[in-house]
Amino acid sequence: MKEFFKVTDLEHTLKYSAGFPNVGTEFIELHKTLERILAVDIISDINLPDFARSTMDGYAVKASSTFGATEENPAYLTVKGTIDMGKPAGFLIGHGEAARISTGGMLPDGSDSVIMVEYTEVVDKTTIEIYKSVAPAQHVLSIGEDIKKRDNVLLCGQRLRPQETGLLAALGKDSVKVYKKPVIGIISTGDEIIPINNIPDKGRIRDINTYTLSSLVQKAGGIPVTYGIIGDDFDSLLEKCSIASAHSDMVLISGGSSVGTRDLTVEVLSALPGSDIMVHGISISPGKPTILARVEDKAVWGLPGHVLSAMIVFEIVIRPFIEKISGLSPQYKKELKIPALLSRNISSAQGRIDYIRVRLIDKNGIKWAEPILGKSGLISNLTKADGLIEIGINTEGLDKGSEVRAIPV
Amino acid sequence: MKEFFKVTDLEHTLKYSAGFPNVGTEFIELHKTLERILAVDIISDINLPDFARSTMDGYAVKASSTFGATEENPAYLTVKGTIDMGKPAGFLIGHGEAARISTGGMLPDGSDSVIMVEYTEVVDKTTIEIYKSVAPAQHVLSIGEDIKKRDNVLLCGQRLRPQETGLLAALGKDSVKVYKKPVIGIISTGDEIIPINNIPDKGRIRDINTYTLSSLVQKAGGIPVTYGIIGDDFDSLLEKCSIASAHSDMVLISGGSSVGTRDLTVEVLSALPGSDIMVHGISISPGKPTILARVEDKAVWGLPGHVLSAMIVFEIVIRPFIEKISGLSPQYKKELKIPALLSRNISSAQGRIDYIRVRLIDKNGIKWAEPILGKSGLISNLTKADGLIEIGINTEGLDKGSEVRAIPV
Repeated sequence: MKEFFKVTDLEHTLKYSAGFPNVGTEFIELHKTLERILAVDIISDINLPDFARSTMDGYAVKASSTFGATEENPAYLTVKGTIDMGKPAGFLIGHGEAARISTGGMLPDGSDSVIMVEYTEVVDKTTIEIYKSVAPAQHVLSIGEDIKKRDNVLLCGQRLRPQETGLLAALGKDSVKVYKKPVIGIISTGDEIIPINNIPDKGRIRDINTYTLSSLVQKAGGIPVTYGIIGDDFDSLLEKCSIASAHSDMVLISGGSSVGTRDLTVEVLSALPGSDIMVHGISISPGKPTILARVEDKAVWGLPGHVLSAMIVFEIVIRPFIEKISGLSPQYKKELKIPALLSRNISSAQGRIDYIRVRLIDKNGIKWAEPILGKSGLISNLTKADGLIEIGINTEGLDKGSEVRAIPV
Repeated sequence: MKEFFKVTDLEHTLKYSAGFPNVGTEFIELHKTLERILAVDIISDINLPDFARSTMDGYAVKASSTFGATEENPAYLTVKGTIDMGKPAGFLIGHGEAARISTGGMLPDGSDSVIMVEYTEVVDKTTIEIYKSVAPAQHVLSIGEDIKKRDNVLLCGQRLRPQETGLLAALGKDSVKVYKKPVIGIISTGDEIIPINNIPDKGRIRDINTYTLSSLVQKAGGIPVTYGIIGDDFDSLLEKCSIASAHSDMVLISGGSSVGTRDLTVEVLSALPGSDIMVHGISISPGKPTILARVEDKAVWGLPGHVLSAMIVFEIVIRPFIEKISGLSPQYKKELKIPALLSRNISSAQGRIDYIRVRLIDKNGIKWAEPILGKSGLISNLTKADGLIEIGINTEGLDKGSEVRAIPV
């Protein structure tokens, strides 16, 4: 049986991502930008607001007209009219004058502040009493106070959440330059693998990995393109890999669990024109028998056959590569981890990072991480985990009650 | 100015969600199921595996042939052949016999366990030495050990992650019954609102809310359908609301910030045939001026005009309603909150729940929640927050260093 002659550690494996180029860019309509990665800095070409804008319902006034006003000694102002939303007033506010204004209304010339309606009382059609003084600029957004023309408001490499979409709308960007979604080719291998709509003969198993990886790719922001199932045959796999790598930004080969399939994957990856085997084995468990080849400027991966191992390798190793070629800046990565206490002792081997699948359970106000037990490789265990915890390379295990940080899955 | 005569608390508002029916169901292909909500229980119609399956590379044997074998005193077995992946062996294993087998291979009749290749050595073409005994069933998944025929493996109302998709593939479910994505109509109102591709005249503002809400709806698993901008005109808004509620599973009305727009929304919601105003004001801040009407069996919302308030109402109030009508079971809700320490004192009024937008910052190994400061309602503040923290209804504020739990946004 072949041994991995030089296993690469996780940190070094992840560093190789820097060597793969970003995908191209495209313009898309603003309402389609959710979770997309911005491919330009966004510079405002307007002041926001571009008029002095009320932030309250009340009366636009000169602040000086209100100085000294109190409940005991109110000031009286003459109401010159009402500001219609979306329009300039069409009249001036002088000393001792006021105009009805709503939140978002444009201050009339001459006014510099807004007194909230709560501190006023209507005396007659054209007169109000006010009980409080306001400072100049109070309850007003002045021109450019929110965003100034030429402000750099969003950065290239930023992931667009609903709030960024809102900001882009405010600036009138109805079309936005983003990175394309990377196309990820998926190939299943192994003589024992059959299409899922077939009834397996004895010894065969349905193609779980294509569907699991396809969903994982979508979740990571990529577009999965599936290339079906290839038996353990050098020429067929070589041909399919060539096609897939020519038409994708990255390729995932997965599926078979046998040593034969694993050996074949390495041979095929080595034989692809312009290929370079960068990683052959990673010091993580599960996931050690992972292969990374560079084919031209694309990453082609050989994944462990079992779906549980393949999922963990995807989460820990491949997703960061997809994010890199998607143009995502490191500071915008989602690195949400959930703190929890370990519910039982777990052991681990030194010299590798162990990933343990856990269920997250709230009990008496404490969040516990409960390792998923049972024979390795049970499909039925697939859906029981909420998270993954990491046991470091120099750690022999963790005691019950240890603080852990779960990566949600 | 009108006052809200009876503000509803958040808990009661959320309880109304139970009264709105789930959307219909549809069958979709397995590779499109990411994040969809399962609309049936999934019962396995097969045993998994449906043959005794090796979980290691090695030799299939009768365990009894290995009893007593040690490094000093190895046992010798006759190799009868190799198990091809995906096929029955075609021969029997008797006492003292072995067959080469890969991970995933089918055990030949007569064998009951697998000895790992690491504990064997090839003597000649048909003989191996073994250095360790194995127990019956060791390194073997027996028939139905993973999943048994008639096991209920997934539940109606469950959200499908990549791992559930994998499980469905293992069971051969190439088409899956899920709840439809709810269609959410979005209407912007307000005389001051203009389409985003227009240049605003003085006093006008671009339609930020349609785009922000549209992204939020997508993030919540819904399909946004936008109905454009309606000025502050009763008949136009009534007509548009009728059309939107007839063609959607829920409607969000938003956009204008003026008191006129807010009043108009209530009037229109009251005038819709079959409508019932369930909530007129919620005791949360921001977000108090939120209206919930039941129109026939659909929820129609009047949202606060400012996008920051509207976003918070969406996250805290509307998303749970969308999840309810999407068929999501409460136990599958994503309730990830991030523990952090508050970076400064914040005050809060009693009698309402306050939501404070925070930036989450790691400093010296501690996660801090830093409230976003500045004038209320700045669009430029939109994108600065990573989370929302809640200050309870009976709390006057929180001190610097308090433990908070941020809802990621």
